[in-house]
Amino acid sequence: MYDACVSKGSCVCVGLDPRLDKIPSQIRERAISKNKNTFKAAAEAVLEFNKGIIDAVYDLVPVVKPQIAFYEMFGEEGIRVFRETIEYAKSKGLITIADVKRNDIGSTAEAYANAFLGEVDLFGEKVKVFDADAVTITPYLGWDGIKPFMEACIKYGKGMFVLVKTSNPSSGDVQDLCMKDSKAVYEIMGHYIDSWGADDIGKNGFSPIGAVVGATYPDQSKRLREIMPNSFFLVPGYGAQGGTAQDVKNCFIKDSHDVMTGAIVNSSREIIFAYEKSEKYGEKEYDKAAREAVMKMNEDLGSALK
Amino acid sequence: MYDACVSKGSCVCVGLDPRLDKIPSQIRERAISKNKNTFKAAAEAVLEFNKGIIDAVYDLVPVVKPQIAFYEMFGEEGIRVFRETIEYAKSKGLITIADVKRNDIGSTAEAYANAFLGEVDLFGEKVKVFDADAVTITPYLGWDGIKPFMEACIKYGKGMFVLVKTSNPSSGDVQDLCMKDSKAVYEIMGHYIDSWGADDIGKNGFSPIGAVVGATYPDQSKRLREIMPNSFFLVPGYGAQGGTAQDVKNCFIKDSHDVMTGAIVNSSREIIFAYEKSEKYGEKEYDKAAREAVMKMNEDLGSALK
Repeated sequence: MYDACVSKGSCVCVGLDPRLDKIPSQIRERAISKNKNTFKAAAEAVLEFNKGIIDAVYDLVPVVKPQIAFYEMFGEEGIRVFRETIEYAKSKGLITIADVKRNDIGSTAEAYANAFLGEVDLFGEKVKVFDADAVTITPYLGWDGIKPFMEACIKYGKGMFVLVKTSNPSSGDVQDLCMKDSKAVYEIMGHYIDSWGADDIGKNGFSPIGAVVGATYPDQSKRLREIMPNSFFLVPGYGAQGGTAQDVKNCFIKDSHDVMTGAIVNSSREIIFAYEKSEKYGEKEYDKAAREAVMKMNEDLGSALK
Repeated sequence: MYDACVSKGSCVCVGLDPRLDKIPSQIRERAISKNKNTFKAAAEAVLEFNKGIIDAVYDLVPVVKPQIAFYEMFGEEGIRVFRETIEYAKSKGLITIADVKRNDIGSTAEAYANAFLGEVDLFGEKVKVFDADAVTITPYLGWDGIKPFMEACIKYGKGMFVLVKTSNPSSGDVQDLCMKDSKAVYEIMGHYIDSWGADDIGKNGFSPIGAVVGATYPDQSKRLREIMPNSFFLVPGYGAQGGTAQDVKNCFIKDSHDVMTGAIVNSSREIIFAYEKSEKYGEKEYDKAAREAVMKMNEDLGSALK
């Protein structure tokens, strides 16, 4: 992640959260005319849309993050294009984060880790399934639900981002609960992640266990940056959810080469559906609108991080 | 759920967590001979295996619970048979819990809720996708990630089970953290669930928001039963994970008709792969072994709950 951010000169993650009703009509109509089955048509529309976005932004950003909910809603056809989206993004040199927020007891978490990061045993043959570069994980079940992902990360050279302080309005219901020693749940999660990753810190100073830290809570992200100096942050909440470039600054650290690093900032709707607000481009040129939005976001974050 | 438990005289939930290497060889070989594509073969083996289990137990239990990790690991083919397993179980009169432990911010949680419980908009047409009767949910993101599921439950007459105190060894990492007022996180979750469901209590005394409470922590489940008198409990951890019939007793309540109710107890491996330990049945009769295991579990729980 570190190298990809440096070489692209960008810390932007494009969230691929396609919503069928916002996909430009020319794509939807083409998909319907080609497919009788409406699930297939929906999935094909999503895939074509995603490829258009990826083609438009792959040279400007290091990473994309498809959110599986917006694929799973189309059943098996949706899961197919989720997989194909990851494949296509990787073929364009992008890092892919499967935003799946999976979690379960150990033996089940292992099945998830094999599916998304590792290999699955098919009648004795080892086969890759989704083969993303990283996943998002929910920590409510504690370490034994996270350990299989950690093992897969080490074995296959992948990464993970554990939810610590999320960007949504009610994230405090659980995450801000305050302990006897005055620490909040999110701080304790931060300490866990720092210790779980401590034995596996790579050459650029980061462990495979990153953290999801919302742009919408800058005070908390400042505290979490202190607690987890060796974790990459995946920062949602910029743009549509209200977080600004100034808000995300606290998620970064200056490394020994004087590079501001350690975080990638996600934006979904404001990039992939930028055509809705663009003065220059309509839905026919949704890809150009997305590229323009990425350039603006790169610039916005670049200035703030100077 | 209440009615189904009473009419079947059982509170057993059969966990459909198929593992390819434990599926009897006759099923695996048939699937391989019929399908060149190994993903398809694996999925077909899973589906045939599940149908055999369902046929063998559907008259003895009220509910089955497929765990999606063991399907998703076979990509889109796995998701197809996850959907078809739910469909088949429902055709046999079973209640289905999609064990997906989904969670996300509001707009994304809505996509999940539509996919698993409600309807999805496909080019203006409303279509059911997985159409399970209930789902499992992770609460780390708080109320706004749970609300869309609640809305779907009310709209479509469905249910949900929120993780409160899970059965795994490290569940305490987060769930047992102790607050300033000496309440643990799992107790606070219990209070949340009780209040979130308070306005929607049905004729049998239960709200659509149930709780996952592990059989492996009987003291905690006693406390949680007091906190959530109007929630059904889904109780994992019986059998293979070490929980006994005595351990799960605390999860039940005696209702006004003198019926012990309010919980369903899940067992997966010990039922679906019962042939491995059976003295009477080998892998060829895995279905009979499963039926025998269910009868034994019904009896075991029946005696303990007398």
